[in-house]
Order: sequence, then C-alpha cells, then structure tokens
Amino acid sequence: MIRIALDTMGGDHGPQAMVAGAKLAVERGFVAAEQLLLVGAEAAVRTELEAQGVAQLGFEVVDAPDALDGSESPVEALKRKPHNSVAVGIGQVKVGRAHGFVSAGSTGLVVASAMFGLSCLEGIRRPGIAVTIRGEKGPFTVMDVGANPQPKPQHLLHYGLMGAAYMRDTFGIERPRVGLMNIGSEDKKGNPLVREAREMLQGVAGDFEFVGNVEGVDVFAGKCDVIVSDGFTGNVLLKVSEGCAEYLLHSMGRAMAKAGVAPDLQKQVLGMLLRDVDFSEYGGALLLGVEGIVTICHGRSNASAIANAIGVASRAVGAKVNEHIVHAARMVTAAS
Amino acid sequence: MIRIALDTMGGDHGPQAMVAGAKLAVERGFVAAEQLLLVGAEAAVRTELEAQGVAQLGFEVVDAPDALDGSESPVEALKRKPHNSVAVGIGQVKVGRAHGFVSAGSTGLVVASAMFGLSCLEGIRRPGIAVTIRGEKGPFTVMDVGANPQPKPQHLLHYGLMGAAYMRDTFGIERPRVGLMNIGSEDKKGNPLVREAREMLQGVAGDFEFVGNVEGVDVFAGKCDVIVSDGFTGNVLLKVSEGCAEYLLHSMGRAMAKAGVAPDLQKQVLGMLLRDVDFSEYGGALLLGVEGIVTICHGRSNASAIANAIGVASRAVGAKVNEHIVHAARMVTAAS
Repeated sequence: MIRIALDTMGGDHGPQAMVAGAKLAVERGFVAAEQLLLVGAEAAVRTELEAQGVAQLGFEVVDAPDALDGSESPVEALKRKPHNSVAVGIGQVKVGRAHGFVSAGSTGLVVASAMFGLSCLEGIRRPGIAVTIRGEKGPFTVMDVGANPQPKPQHLLHYGLMGAAYMRDTFGIERPRVGLMNIGSEDKKGNPLVREAREMLQGVAGDFEFVGNVEGVDVFAGKCDVIVSDGFTGNVLLKVSEGCAEYLLHSMGRAMAKAGVAPDLQKQVLGMLLRDVDFSEYGGALLLGVEGIVTICHGRSNASAIANAIGVASRAVGAKVNEHIVHAARMVTAAS
Repeated sequence: MIRIALDTMGGDHGPQAMVAGAKLAVERGFVAAEQLLLVGAEAAVRTELEAQGVAQLGFEVVDAPDALDGSESPVEALKRKPHNSVAVGIGQVKVGRAHGFVSAGSTGLVVASAMFGLSCLEGIRRPGIAVTIRGEKGPFTVMDVGANPQPKPQHLLHYGLMGAAYMRDTFGIERPRVGLMNIGSEDKKGNPLVREAREMLQGVAGDFEFVGNVEGVDVFAGKCDVIVSDGFTGNVLLKVSEGCAEYLLHSMGRAMAKAGVAPDLQKQVLGMLLRDVDFSEYGGALLLGVEGIVTICHGRSNASAIANAIGVASRAVGAKVNEHIVHAARMVTAAS
C-alpha cells in the first residue's frame, strides 16, 4: 500500500488547511484515509480532526512535538528542533513507513531535511526541484527551480533525465522533449556551465529527445516538455512568471472595467484565467533525486492544492518514477 | 546639437520601417531631421526616402556599403564586412559625429561593435544592457539582460549605479531604489556572485537606495526602480516575461470569447493590454557603460518603436546620463 506522510504544521493556514486537504484527497479518491500519515503536534492534529468531523476516518497521526516558529534557519531547525513536523515526516520516508512526503513548509527546510535524512537515488549526485507549469500547449516541467543554485554540468544532465522520467510517468509523454535554458539558440551561447551541459545532454541516448537550447520566449510556447536550468535561473524564471501573471491579471481586470465589460463577465473571465495561471495546479514542486517522493507546496496552499499534491505524490510513487530515474541514470553511466 | 545615428538596414522590416521611424521621430518632435544620420546602403536609403516622400527633409545619409545577410557571427561580420551599417553607425559615435546610435540589428553584433569600437566610460569595466519594462507601479529597469552572462561582482555594482543614473535622468526618479536579483530575501541566499555584489552595493553611498535582494515575484510588483542581474538571469527574466505575457494574452482572448464578451469589447481590452505589455514602449534596450548612447531595438520594431527609441536616445544624451555615470563611478572608486 502506498503511504504518504503529510506535514500538517506547514503553510500559512496551518493544520486547518492541511487536515482539510487530507479530507479532500480522500473525498476525491486520490488516496484512502489509511494511506495518509498526518504528521504534527498530536493534540493539535486530533483537535482539528474532531473539528472537521473526520476523526473516525482512520487517519494515522504521527506526533512531531517540536514547533517551528518560522524564524529558524533550516540548519537551526534541524539541530535544535529535530522533532519538527518536516524532519519527522522525512523520517517516515527514511524508515520506509511512507513512500512520499507532502509539506507546505519552507522550501529551505524541506530540502535540507530531505538531503540530510534521505539518500540520493543511485547514480544521482544532487537532487533538484521540479515544478510543472501550464503553457500554451499544456504542462511542462522546469528543473531545477532552486535546490541547487550552483550546479555542475552533470547535475543538469541528471535534471534532464529526471524531468523526463517524471513527465513520462505522470503525464504519459512517451518521449519527452528536453530543452536547456539558455540565452540564445546557438551552440556556443551562454556560459561554460550550459555549454558543457549541452554536450553531455547531446551525447546521451536516453528515453528523451534533447531539443537543444531554449530561450525565455520559448518557455511558455510549448517548445519542450522539460526545461533544464540551474537552480538560480530556474527560480527566477518560475517566480518572475508568477509575478508577471499576477501583474497581467490586475491589468486585465482594469482593462475590462475600463472597456465596460459587465462585472459578472469580468469575474467569469478572471476565474478562467486564474485556473490557467494557478501554478499549484499540478500538485506542487517535487524534490527529485532522493529516495521517496518529496513534494513542496506553496505556503499559501489551500485544501484543494494540498489534495492535488497528495494525489500527484501518490501517482508518482505508483508510477515508479524513482525506479525509472535510477534506470535512466544507469544507462547514462554505462554509456559514458 | 545632439545627433543620433540610425541603422537603417537592421530589423525584420529593413529600410522601410527605419526610414518611417525617422520620419515619425521628426513628426513627433523628438528630433529635427538634421539631427539624424541615416546609416545604410546609400542607394537603398535614398530610394526609401523618395518613396516615403521625405527626401527634402534634410536627413543626412551615411553610406555603409557592406550588406549583412544575418548568417554571420558578430566576429565574422566585423572582420569581413567592416563597412556594415552597425559598424559604420558605431564609427559615427566614435569620431564624435553622433552622440547616440539606434539599431534594430542583432544584439550580438551591436554589442560586439560597440565594445570593439567605443571606449568604456571612465571607471566602468564592462558595459551592460538595460531594458525598461512597465510593472504594477510604473517603469523599472533591468540590467544586465545579456551583454555579460558571467559578470564579476564589481560589474553588478556598476550596473546598479548605471541603472540608477539612467532612471534618474530619464524618468526623473530622484533616488532610485536598486535591488539585486536573487532567489531569496536573506543576505546569505544565492551564489557567491550575488553575495559579493550585495556587500559591494551595501557598502556604497551612491545617489540611490539599495533595497537588498529582490525575488522573481517582486520584479513586476514595483519593489524597486532598478533590478541588477547577471546577463544570463536577466536575459531569461526579460524573455520569459515576454513569453508569459504573450501566453496570457492568448488565454485572455480565449477566456473572453468563451465567456461571451462582445467581439468589439474583446478587441478593446486586448488593445489596452497590449500597450501594457509592449516591451519596446520605453525605447528599446540601452547598452550602458560605453561612450555614447547605444540603443538596441527588437528586430520586429515598427516605425513607432523606432521613433520612440530615437526619442529616448536623444533624451538620454541631453540628460547627460554618461556624465552622471562617470561621476557615480568616481564616487564609488574614491570611497573604496
């Protein structure tokens, strides 16, 4: 049975949203209640289960008594509060009680806990964060968006094959097209990192098609299914897109009002667009490259986003994404 | 008299759009005809002047007989076709016949020609490209967006003071707020480059306010007037924003149609939004840090974008942006 540990203490809305997300994940049929381990301060979680009338559903509660106040650095949190909900949740994966972990806590803490507590997958040197966004022609995945701001070329190669495995297993794309984030389409563009990574990606006969460099304008145009990036650039890419989308939604609201579009129509249009730019739609960010499926949700995630994240994590476990990553990494190692 | 050299051969639409842009710049009162030097294959330019009925206006034509076909690398173009319109235009700035140069040719060629042909401003080690974009609270400038994909910390410091001088002189912002593009707000976030640049920017008492790190989500929110970035990240930032805006405009069109907004209203709304996301609105990209004002326009620029670029270049020359940059660099050098 696939089991997912859920950090009920993380996020802006705390246990209330997380328990509601667990409840919704069960209602939507993503998982059964017994597949979820609710990690958090036990009394608080049980109170919330009672309050939401789901105490009888059979969720297992795993106590994590150390409360974080958000002021700790990841290192401090791990050192001084080892029984915080993130570390305990990762621990459930480590000991094999859970196959995945979902948290809306701080990205830094989740990444640090996972890198400290979990082994890297065989053949993978550094994990990276993959985020799936909707573009002109459907979803695409950007990896890495911040776990590794100073990668080596080999890490980028691994991000390519991990992103491809994820898109194949979760979105059913047989032979994902992988592109390398760069500032021009020519081979020699960019910096030494991307030039070396490009040669490595070109030389690999993997289960994906390497389409070469992609530029910023290509990102949303659907030129590829996986965009490989260093964590610094990938983070800026992701967050600028979010900020740009927010700005444009505001502009759009103003433009419709000014043009005299009826208020109810305005609302309808903006509602549709919000769904298009909802970057949590595809279930949060995945830290790929470690044992288990580790999912990081936006702090502002509501119950629906959490339920989606639980669903995606469960699907990724079921689809054996990690096994396929290890297999792809072995092929690469054997070939080089 | 301020004189601007205009490359009439660059861009997707060639002499037709460039001559129309020159004409429009005069009509809008940005410059007088005798302030413009039209650089290009003389016969072609004169034919276009006749065709557009502006031969009598008094534009000076500067012959640049070497035609580029777009297949040359910048180095090849400079070596084998030294009398191409970009090199000749830059040459007009070099000898002091023009104070600014406007081109819609390839960014690579314009940057290479300028770095080869023009001196760096006193105190500045590496030029950078500044682009002004409209955000939630008005225009802001990102520098560098691609001239220098592997800068040193000192270059980023210079981008900060150059961007600030530009925003002060051209947009009248007394004390521009300068932010450093990073992947978190904490001091120690990012990579060694941004950490060192942060210390340098913090230690400088310039005519600007250093607001610290900015993240991707802050870019369009109006948190600062100048965003300092390495050229790789800045290029991705700019182009992803363009791509994201394009994607959202399409989504928006579809959403309005689906919601049943009347076609003429749809058109009106999209028209307003297009003006909001028109990244050429503020007159193209400026290569700051070299003698003269060098402006690079989108290849797809139409006459209006070219006219704006001529106006901005002329204003930047008139406002003595370069003198103010040299002054700011001297203050920094004296302090360190």
